[in-house]
Amino acid sequence: MIIDGRKIAEEIKSSLKEEVLRLNKKPKLAVVYVENNLASLKFIEQKEKFGREIGIEVKVFKFAENISAVRLRKQITEIVRLKKNTGVIIQLPLPATINVQYILNSVPAKKDPDMLSLESVGGLAVGQNITLPPIAGAVAEIFEKYKIDYKNKYIAIMGAGNLVGKPVALWLLNQKAAFSVIRSATKNPEEFTKKADIIISGVGKPKFITGNMVKNGAVIIDCGTSVETAPVSSLSYAADSSEHKQPPISKLVGDVDFDSVNLKASHITPVPGGIGPITVAMLFKNLVRNCGIV
Amino acid sequence: MIIDGRKIAEEIKSSLKEEVLRLNKKPKLAVVYVENNLASLKFIEQKEKFGREIGIEVKVFKFAENISAVRLRKQITEIVRLKKNTGVIIQLPLPATINVQYILNSVPAKKDPDMLSLESVGGLAVGQNITLPPIAGAVAEIFEKYKIDYKNKYIAIMGAGNLVGKPVALWLLNQKAAFSVIRSATKNPEEFTKKADIIISGVGKPKFITGNMVKNGAVIIDCGTSVETAPVSSLSYAADSSEHKQPPISKLVGDVDFDSVNLKASHITPVPGGIGPITVAMLFKNLVRNCGIV
Repeated sequence: MIIDGRKIAEEIKSSLKEEVLRLNKKPKLAVVYVENNLASLKFIEQKEKFGREIGIEVKVFKFAENISAVRLRKQITEIVRLKKNTGVIIQLPLPATINVQYILNSVPAKKDPDMLSLESVGGLAVGQNITLPPIAGAVAEIFEKYKIDYKNKYIAIMGAGNLVGKPVALWLLNQKAAFSVIRSATKNPEEFTKKADIIISGVGKPKFITGNMVKNGAVIIDCGTSVETAPVSSLSYAADSSEHKQPPISKLVGDVDFDSVNLKASHITPVPGGIGPITVAMLFKNLVRNCGIV
Repeated sequence: MIIDGRKIAEEIKSSLKEEVLRLNKKPKLAVVYVENNLASLKFIEQKEKFGREIGIEVKVFKFAENISAVRLRKQITEIVRLKKNTGVIIQLPLPATINVQYILNSVPAKKDPDMLSLESVGGLAVGQNITLPPIAGAVAEIFEKYKIDYKNKYIAIMGAGNLVGKPVALWLLNQKAAFSVIRSATKNPEEFTKKADIIISGVGKPKFITGNMVKNGAVIIDCGTSVETAPVSSLSYAADSSEHKQPPISKLVGDVDFDSVNLKASHITPVPGGIGPITVAMLFKNLVRNCGIV
């Protein structure tokens, strides 16, 4: 069964839209974007669109790629201070010269719908948070909607990055499931994946997980995001004038070799249209929730 | 090879003793003890002894078992406020009625050598802490002293409790090792342990890990602490007068069936005399370090 992430996201959207209508104080999302990664623009666009559709203003604060970490943190502190900004998120990745966690920590927990600051991560790790980071919330939402029992199952988490593996692992540490965290350097990842009831992958390697690595009936959640640029034929390339060059055709791909894995999985999320739209929806769910309690 | 925890602890003790001599401001450890668990007394005694031997005062603050969480937190805040208390630890377990994390969060990171507050756990989870929680520090110390390469190995963590499984998992999330977290409810723990290069167990079930669950050459770190009371023969029991009753003979046991596992392990920690003394030493190492930087 292919998990329809867009459909789940639409359901969340409808209920959030109603909820926002009832709120006296409207939530507002500030997005901090350091201009270093063009793929980020697409993700920001998705957030702007989602916000618009549920009546939430999304404002993007752009900074030049060469901004210093100290200056960026100061700017974010100003953005956080404004009462109307009920949530502030930092669009990742940041330029390699910047200490990412130092920047993420400038958002206090109650204005942190992405839940990436030390305070939010700590609350998650000790198990005292009510909300989950969007990616973990999205996984939990899929489990709930598709009635997937994960509590006594074995889950393989591929990768331990800040945006997928780590938040999912921290969430599961406070649940009843057994899980493994597999790194990209781990030699025989298939030894783990073959036994897993559920695989959650956030490595960023296209076709990293193939059908022969998966057991029959497994649940596959593909959180990988790589941007693949389609090869441009030499003919069409040669025909381009430098003035009218087309932007390269790029598409978002996950970690899973969909066709071969789909033959074995009981449930699978596609890319795009799988975990991505739900994660955006969960970000806004966190934003709306925080707005109610602050 | 049996890992000699007492010897490693003695080495750390000697170097800390010298370090304390050189400090202008002496560290002082406050131990908060709610009188609900007799086994705690033994652990507190070990800390008092270690402190005495390196020239650090350890003061125990005792509270009655029926103290409320709010009152206890207030009292701890007072203890934390005193400048001379450079470190404050809460002896666990607390009575079941008390929200443990609420109490642990009353210790700020810079006075938290046990590193159990939200702030300390968060810093560990995001990978920005310099120091490690004592149990993870003790495991790291063993790896270093015995030149055990763990970075590209597979580690099975048994249990996800606050004192062992969770801090070890949080540490490893920021290292390069692949690891699994196995719960006491997991059906076939041997499927994981048999493949593990390193097993770190903190379940609290005597003889939980037996020789047939372990692969040849594995490294076994036993962090389990159960108190086993030796059976008292009916004769000696009958002979007891209620006035001169002997205390029951109790001993500390780990999770590992030492004899059968020792036949296969390349390295193994005994209980007692394994991870325990090193963990106490690492607590004081954190205390001394914090004292230098505050």
